[in-house]
Amino acid sequence: MIQAALDYAQQHKEANLQKLIELLAIPSISTIENNHAVMDEGAAWVRDYLQSIGLDKVEILPTDGYANVYGEWLGAGDDKPTLLLYGHYDVQPVEPLEDWISPPFEPTIRGDDIFARGAMDDKGQFFAILAAVDAYLKTSNALPINVKVLIEGEEEILSPNIVPFMDEHKEKLAADAVLVCDHPMLGKDLPMILYGVRGSCYFEITLRTARQDLHSGTYGGGVENPFNVLVRMMAQMQDAETRRILVPGFYDAVVEVSDEERALINNPIVTDDAIRHYTGTKQPIGEAGYTSAERISVRPTFEIHGMPGGYMGVGKKSIIPAMAQAKIGFRLVPNQDPNQIAELVMDYLYSLAPDTMEIDIHRMGGRSNPVVMDHTAPAVQAAAKAYQQVFPNPPLLMRGGGSEPITWDFQNTLGLPVVMMGFGLPDDNMHSPNEKFHLPNFYKAIETLIHYFAILAE
Amino acid sequence: MIQAALDYAQQHKEANLQKLIELLAIPSISTIENNHAVMDEGAAWVRDYLQSIGLDKVEILPTDGYANVYGEWLGAGDDKPTLLLYGHYDVQPVEPLEDWISPPFEPTIRGDDIFARGAMDDKGQFFAILAAVDAYLKTSNALPINVKVLIEGEEEILSPNIVPFMDEHKEKLAADAVLVCDHPMLGKDLPMILYGVRGSCYFEITLRTARQDLHSGTYGGGVENPFNVLVRMMAQMQDAETRRILVPGFYDAVVEVSDEERALINNPIVTDDAIRHYTGTKQPIGEAGYTSAERISVRPTFEIHGMPGGYMGVGKKSIIPAMAQAKIGFRLVPNQDPNQIAELVMDYLYSLAPDTMEIDIHRMGGRSNPVVMDHTAPAVQAAAKAYQQVFPNPPLLMRGGGSEPITWDFQNTLGLPVVMMGFGLPDDNMHSPNEKFHLPNFYKAIETLIHYFAILAE
Repeated sequence: MIQAALDYAQQHKEANLQKLIELLAIPSISTIENNHAVMDEGAAWVRDYLQSIGLDKVEILPTDGYANVYGEWLGAGDDKPTLLLYGHYDVQPVEPLEDWISPPFEPTIRGDDIFARGAMDDKGQFFAILAAVDAYLKTSNALPINVKVLIEGEEEILSPNIVPFMDEHKEKLAADAVLVCDHPMLGKDLPMILYGVRGSCYFEITLRTARQDLHSGTYGGGVENPFNVLVRMMAQMQDAETRRILVPGFYDAVVEVSDEERALINNPIVTDDAIRHYTGTKQPIGEAGYTSAERISVRPTFEIHGMPGGYMGVGKKSIIPAMAQAKIGFRLVPNQDPNQIAELVMDYLYSLAPDTMEIDIHRMGGRSNPVVMDHTAPAVQAAAKAYQQVFPNPPLLMRGGGSEPITWDFQNTLGLPVVMMGFGLPDDNMHSPNEKFHLPNFYKAIETLIHYFAILAE
Repeated sequence: MIQAALDYAQQHKEANLQKLIELLAIPSISTIENNHAVMDEGAAWVRDYLQSIGLDKVEILPTDGYANVYGEWLGAGDDKPTLLLYGHYDVQPVEPLEDWISPPFEPTIRGDDIFARGAMDDKGQFFAILAAVDAYLKTSNALPINVKVLIEGEEEILSPNIVPFMDEHKEKLAADAVLVCDHPMLGKDLPMILYGVRGSCYFEITLRTARQDLHSGTYGGGVENPFNVLVRMMAQMQDAETRRILVPGFYDAVVEVSDEERALINNPIVTDDAIRHYTGTKQPIGEAGYTSAERISVRPTFEIHGMPGGYMGVGKKSIIPAMAQAKIGFRLVPNQDPNQIAELVMDYLYSLAPDTMEIDIHRMGGRSNPVVMDHTAPAVQAAAKAYQQVFPNPPLLMRGGGSEPITWDFQNTLGLPVVMMGFGLPDDNMHSPNEKFHLPNFYKAIETLIHYFAILAE
């Protein structure tokens, strides 16, 4: 059964590529408001494809925003696991358009890469999952496991309607685990399975002194400068030596990682030298008592993203700015709750602010909880074995430093373990101009997933 | 002699206004590079006017930049003082042009004001000085004192050529005092004599971590964030409680003001309520142990003018900025030396910067020394008496919080006491669109100066 599927995939590389090109040509950008005509076209294409490969109960399921597409094949029997296959047909915006070598929705092959918006994130990767399903159904009229397919239309806008959708379709989406292929690998031959993500929490802090910028000669020394105050507040967010975050209670819910997990996280790839190489930084540095690999994955962070206000142009302008802002973000780790952290942060910031000026703290951005999965779960271990059938190195098991709200929803709303595989490359320009998918990885992804379904059934 | 001059000025209000309008129509913007044709026209107009009112030895004196214009009348005799009358015919740029109600170089009278770039700063004010000279020479063929006139062409670009010019023409410019009329009053009936200005010293500090902005999920916690570091450095510039500047040695050269001078500075006009009213700030605040009036005039300051870098747009962007800048400025008081302070500040900043990132400190801007004059000097006391002949309130003797490099040059290169009178109003939009000069003040200025020359001769 598996060999026939592998052979089929091998023989249908060109056909799969042509189908992918069709999908990539649809400009299904979800960040554009009321982009319904185009998004509907994307959903319809996915529906037609799910039907064409032989899935059952294929349907477009509406939400309050853009629709999701569903299909299933449950013929493997009750004694076989059911895997929910997740993907998203919506894509990021394309700006700046002038930076694209070929138009974002005219998929173009250069060398071993296919260039298009969505090539890797996520059309190329979820298509690889479906192509693996197709290879089994075409050759054996069956799969080793039961599968359900959910292709979403709002991932790039933080899935605002997914929780009510999951609540409404709890029965339909019931499964043993969910597979998400939406990440890059660490390098060409370095596969990676994520078993966690960090959460996040953002704020914009605004201090105001005066009606308008003031001449620093006329009033300097006598009127509060909001930047002078703001830097003092910001300097009190993090200890200069230990780099510990000083918000009272901030670490209360943080779960320390076990020695066993630390050993896993401190793999030979994510080193200080690698960070130097990829970022150009002189000296990786962070929280005392933790390695770089730990700091960027299992420890919470505080970052100032920017401080608008006052004079931001070239040269000098001698003003007391009327307004100063800090855009700040925290990455959170299990079991920090973003809403609770938000309260702690706001209480602390208000306590630091003098009453000589107006302060406004605005929490920005959507839901984003930290998630950690059991990396010893059978569905994760099976994924690791599957990679080893196709790639020269075993996958690294890692916790991602970024945020992926949908994983929290799968875990908490549907109660599913999430398997996060990835087949992109670090230079695939995810969310940037000239997004691409490396074609050898596209074909290897299909192969790996064919193996994965078989291993899961064992 | 004085009554004839006063009568003449009274009868020639309209004629003086028409001459001023001619001068205001010349777009003599010195900040435009190689604006020689227009600047030469400005210098020529001044030369012709000096000749027309009967000054001797009138000539245009070239510099490496825009020319200065000179003239003199020394017929009062050796026993009478010689006053150097200073002004500048160059003006500020006019941008944003669309904010002007009438074109900046089409002088327009609305109500009691004449609107034009340079109306108050400084064409209207130096013309008033010359009109006072004219009133005497036309009516008595003589002045009560000897006068020399120097009208500069580069004040708005910080007089880069004035020191070599003064050195070259030391003899020609020798006098007992210099009169500068280039400031506003405190209010319509509140004349002010400045007997000091603060100096200044500016820096742009740049911290760099990485080659480009980094994803705060991927690298957050493991790579130095230049803003996190910069806010700590900036927070260490000033004590949070006392608002004292923490740069070692910063106050060493500061001359404390005497109790007598404190009494002068703490006048009934410059109050906390006035600062609240004019700025909209909730609570004036500053260095412990000093009043608001002292803080904004005789105490040094530290201001952050802006902190460019990272994400400055609307909404959020989850980055570790590759670069963070602080634009900072200090106002200095006697006897702080800007060059010495610059060294102290740079040493301190370098000592605060961690070696995990690149730091660049760039000193910006030109020469600007703090200056204090003897407010009991006869030329200053005479000016105070002159105001009282024309205005309902005696002038306040104050030290200005802003900077005026030329006063340092008069004091140090020429060794002259500087008398800083002013006839503008706080809402005259100096350096802004819709600059204006209040016509009643224009005529009162001529009258006051006629009195001043007479009082000086007593």
